[in-house]
Amino acid sequence: MALKRKKISVIGSGFTGATTAFLLGQKELGDVVLVDIPNMENPTKGKALDMAEAAPVLGFDADVTGTSDYADTAGSDLVIITAGMARKPGMSRDDLVQTNQKIMKAVTADVVKHSPDTIILILTNPVDAMTYTAFKESGFPKERVIGQSGVLDTARFRTFVARELNLSVKDVTGFVLGGHGDDMVPLVRYSYAGGIPLDALLPADRLEAIVDRTRKGGAEIVELLGNGSAYYAPAASLAEMAEAILKDQKRVLPSIAYLEGEYGMDGLYLGVPTVLGAGGIEKIIELDLTEDEQAKLKKSADSVRKVMDILQ
Amino acid sequence: MALKRKKISVIGSGFTGATTAFLLGQKELGDVVLVDIPNMENPTKGKALDMAEAAPVLGFDADVTGTSDYADTAGSDLVIITAGMARKPGMSRDDLVQTNQKIMKAVTADVVKHSPDTIILILTNPVDAMTYTAFKESGFPKERVIGQSGVLDTARFRTFVARELNLSVKDVTGFVLGGHGDDMVPLVRYSYAGGIPLDALLPADRLEAIVDRTRKGGAEIVELLGNGSAYYAPAASLAEMAEAILKDQKRVLPSIAYLEGEYGMDGLYLGVPTVLGAGGIEKIIELDLTEDEQAKLKKSADSVRKVMDILQ
Amino acid sequence: MALKRKKISVIGSGFTGATTAFLLGQKELGDVVLVDIPNMENPTKGKALDMAEAAPVLGFDADVTGTSDYADTAGSDLVIITAGMARKPGMSRDDLVQTNQKIMKAVTADVVKHSPDTIILILTNPVDAMTYTAFKESGFPKERVIGQSGVLDTARFRTFVARELNLSVKDVTGFVLGGHGDDMVPLVRYSYAGGIPLDALLPADRLEAIVDRTRKGGAEIVELLGNGSAYYAPAASLAEMAEAILKDQKRVLPSIAYLEGEYGMDGLYLGVPTVLGAGGIEKIIELDLTEDEQAKLKKSADSVRKVMDILQ
Amino acid sequence: MALKRKKISVIGSGFTGATTAFLLGQKELGDVVLVDIPNMENPTKGKALDMAEAAPVLGFDADVTGTSDYADTAGSDLVIITAGMARKPGMSRDDLVQTNQKIMKAVTADVVKHSPDTIILILTNPVDAMTYTAFKESGFPKERVIGQSGVLDTARFRTFVARELNLSVKDVTGFVLGGHGDDMVPLVRYSYAGGIPLDALLPADRLEAIVDRTRKGGAEIVELLGNGSAYYAPAASLAEMAEAILKDQKRVLPSIAYLEGEYGMDGLYLGVPTVLGAGGIEKIIELDLTEDEQAKLKKSADSVRKVMDILQ
Repeated sequence: MALKRKKISVIGSGFTGATTAFLLGQKELGDVVLVDIPNMENPTKGKALDMAEAAPVLGFDADVTGTSDYADTAGSDLVIITAGMARKPGMSRDDLVQTNQKIMKAVTADVVKHSPDTIILILTNPVDAMTYTAFKESGFPKERVIGQSGVLDTARFRTFVARELNLSVKDVTGFVLGGHGDDMVPLVRYSYAGGIPLDALLPADRLEAIVDRTRKGGAEIVELLGNGSAYYAPAASLAEMAEAILKDQKRVLPSIAYLEGEYGMDGLYLGVPTVLGAGGIEKIIELDLTEDEQAKLKKSADSVRKVMDILQ
Repeated sequence: MALKRKKISVIGSGFTGATTAFLLGQKELGDVVLVDIPNMENPTKGKALDMAEAAPVLGFDADVTGTSDYADTAGSDLVIITAGMARKPGMSRDDLVQTNQKIMKAVTADVVKHSPDTIILILTNPVDAMTYTAFKESGFPKERVIGQSGVLDTARFRTFVARELNLSVKDVTGFVLGGHGDDMVPLVRYSYAGGIPLDALLPADRLEAIVDRTRKGGAEIVELLGNGSAYYAPAASLAEMAEAILKDQKRVLPSIAYLEGEYGMDGLYLGVPTVLGAGGIEKIIELDLTEDEQAKLKKSADSVRKVMDILQ
Repeated sequence: MALKRKKISVIGSGFTGATTAFLLGQKELGDVVLVDIPNMENPTKGKALDMAEAAPVLGFDADVTGTSDYADTAGSDLVIITAGMARKPGMSRDDLVQTNQKIMKAVTADVVKHSPDTIILILTNPVDAMTYTAFKESGFPKERVIGQSGVLDTARFRTFVARELNLSVKDVTGFVLGGHGDDMVPLVRYSYAGGIPLDALLPADRLEAIVDRTRKGGAEIVELLGNGSAYYAPAASLAEMAEAILKDQKRVLPSIAYLEGEYGMDGLYLGVPTVLGAGGIEKIIELDLTEDEQAKLKKSADSVRKVMDILQ
Repeated sequence: MALKRKKISVIGSGFTGATTAFLLGQKELGDVVLVDIPNMENPTKGKALDMAEAAPVLGFDADVTGTSDYADTAGSDLVIITAGMARKPGMSRDDLVQTNQKIMKAVTADVVKHSPDTIILILTNPVDAMTYTAFKESGFPKERVIGQSGVLDTARFRTFVARELNLSVKDVTGFVLGGHGDDMVPLVRYSYAGGIPLDALLPADRLEAIVDRTRKGGAEIVELLGNGSAYYAPAASLAEMAEAILKDQKRVLPSIAYLEGEYGMDGLYLGVPTVLGAGGIEKIIELDLTEDEQAKLKKSADSVRKVMDILQ
């Protein structure tokens, strides 16, 4: 039936996955299936049930269920992958990449088997390489395999600017290209408060400090928490991208997209401005970059390629 | 200035406290201060910052900050207390009650010192006795010290019924009196789907099973999670009560209220139907109970009094 | 593509139709096509454009367009019919019924031609007979042709009760069966505030006065306006039913449904409690009525049949 | 009591005033009093009642009432003035200005008498001169008397751009200075889609055509409607400004503000970027303009002064 409720699966029931599921429910975007590995099945069911029990109070009609069986994800309209390891003490970056690659391949295979027409949205780090892994493993067209990083990076940037200027977060925007975190290429000249370029509102050194803080935004939270990493803002970012796709909103949001010539890059996933709608990434928007920006983007791409080289 | 943003403090930055803070932010009810003890200051700041970084994406203007200094809560319009210990293996109930009583007294004193005109909303268990403790310690009029349990209990009940009947959670209601969990007195005759009494829609044994499951709803989540207890639905319940108060909505919601003669009880906090608005508990609604219901409520009150006897 | 935006057509661009279109847009339920007759094409386009220009400010992604060409409604997921004449001075009821029947037949034929799989929701008065007309003309299965009256009647009832008791409208419910307005059969025993039956909260004469005011609720607005009839609450009612269907919410809402034996009635459209979801009316809920209620419902049905007798 | 519900009065119960009241109710910003002249009292009460009857369905707790007695507006936190005449055939512009000036003076006097601490937001045309009139008549500090035009002008611009590029309205922004309509000074270099300057996304002639259409946006609706003018987008604009003030959001929105030296202007009300919060206009943001922009703004100001010269 054409109008039947949509279905979204969230793989990984950790804090980010669970918070994402909760936000998807609140937005009434569809029924949500939260998935984790078999020995996490009970906690996954517990979190999902707890969310479902919040539904009458928050007023949303969306079933939220937990499972470790991918058969329960069958026919998903969207699958969000948050599964993956965080780096443990003593673990090399290569080990981390290869471990998460294995997870990503296995998860993608399971997802594709049960939802061959779905769109896949990925958070797992290192996100550029993991999105590439899912793209290859799925055999999907590139527009249906998407990574998240820029929405989160700009969210942090926007928060810092809004606080600095004591303005509404609704009116502050940011703009990044390239990889996540250290590799991000902020385009301050495309960042505004109320449409006014930020360099007209903030001294250069303050703006520089905010860019720097944004770059290290994930690490700042890790350090404060002491044990674990950010999940509210990452989940909100995934939920916004999901909403853009599921409601066919044609949002202009930064995505990690597969480049085939755009920005002079080819054969890798990298953060660029995109249009998100029912078709996934419906368009990649190309900008004229300054020489400096192009150089930084090249460096960011090199960084991504180095991680891709570790992939097996 | 009359229109300045409201301020809400949430004491306890555990899962329930943090999720409550997040929901209050999402609802744009005011700026939120998340508070915990000094050695939790950094994680508390970390969670608050992560939430603040979600604000631009979710589109809410509410500052969320973390602290261990009660001076930061000064002038709160509402304070929500979630602080407290969970029972540890080998800990007697008396020990738990007395430990949480100490926490509650200390927290209340700190809260009242900085926000003498605030309203206090309490989740900490055992909630009836802890609300009583805060009432005594604060010296506040009874209508400004309120406990939560019935919104959560009915939320679980509504979820189970909506799933059983495959109906919208928006149209299923429940009704409880008395204490939390085991002590709750469900009034099934006041519970409906689309206004239709549930006993016309569900066989007696199914309804009985759902009531029983509701009674054990908290334990069900504890068991599934393996480590920890429910927080999504408890936080949603606190946020709904907070919204009713902060937006002066005159909602009819079950609260743990101080009884002075109502329902034939005197001098204790117990779950009853109330009207929540700008004044806190603006009214206690009294119902004619059947003999059986009155007996059950009496038993629930006895149970609460037994816990109160442990208070020092 | 499975995720492409839904499409809703609203026939009749008068106040109710336009306000309905606006609410559908605000709820981001899909793109909205507002339709009226050729000589109203420009005003219809004007209203639609004005709404579309509100979208950036209110933050909704839903195209709203105006037209007089039914080809523009092609492939609608839902069609809401508000078209029809109001009774003019000197016009007999029979004339009115036959005039609106002609409009309804023509509109339905145009709708069905372009959207053979749609669901039709009808407001045009006399609504029971007009829904029957659309049912016959469309050849659709009964669950896909639905009339509105009870959501509006109970909305008025709930408003009056909430004001009388100074309680949140969120917690007051009402319940009606039968025809619209004068013919409505209010079931006060199924009407509550916070789950508490209203007769425990209001004296019998006040409740009686409120029922009486509800029955004449449409006329009260007509008299106050002096020129025209209610449209905010009717539009809100249509939008709620539309949302239940388009989001597959399984709401328990009163609808004008085709009865084939339910409530001892056969072969007519009458107001009864229903479950609304992706399939339209997914279920009719049958209640045990008292003898008095059954007699009143019979009288209401007789009234509807008298109007049906006028149909040509 | 600090938490009691806010109060907003809307003067003028025509389409814009009524739609504004409806949106304020939907946003649960406070109780709404809709005011019109004595011989419109009944229709005003009728519209307000109709809106109040929509509240249970749309789920908002905000009383909406109609009156012709300014005593009912006493203690308003915000007053929105939409009252005024539209130009009639044969009426000179001078006559229109002087007629509306009389209305504005009378309304302002009545408003101020009953709400001496309120903030006033004005839509009545010619809006720059009418805001000046209310400022003078009220004796209020300049930050508490505000006019609307830029939010509406940019809303239209954003709609046209979003349609042209098939992008979400959420991601398209516009920027104007100066007077309303013909006199507006669009700053295309500060207008974006997803942060990307529009001139990188649209050919110059298309952008020019959109600017021109925006300038005539009000007339386009008037012509289509045939009888009357736009009200959905104007009402949405007023509601957004009201929300920014009542929720102390520190939004960066264009307002008609009283200039005392800013932009080289003195002693007149003109459209400029402002920060709206609990204090009304909390800040005027000054931009460096190009010579061409400054000349256009000067021309716009001259235009406003010409209307001010007609004031008596």
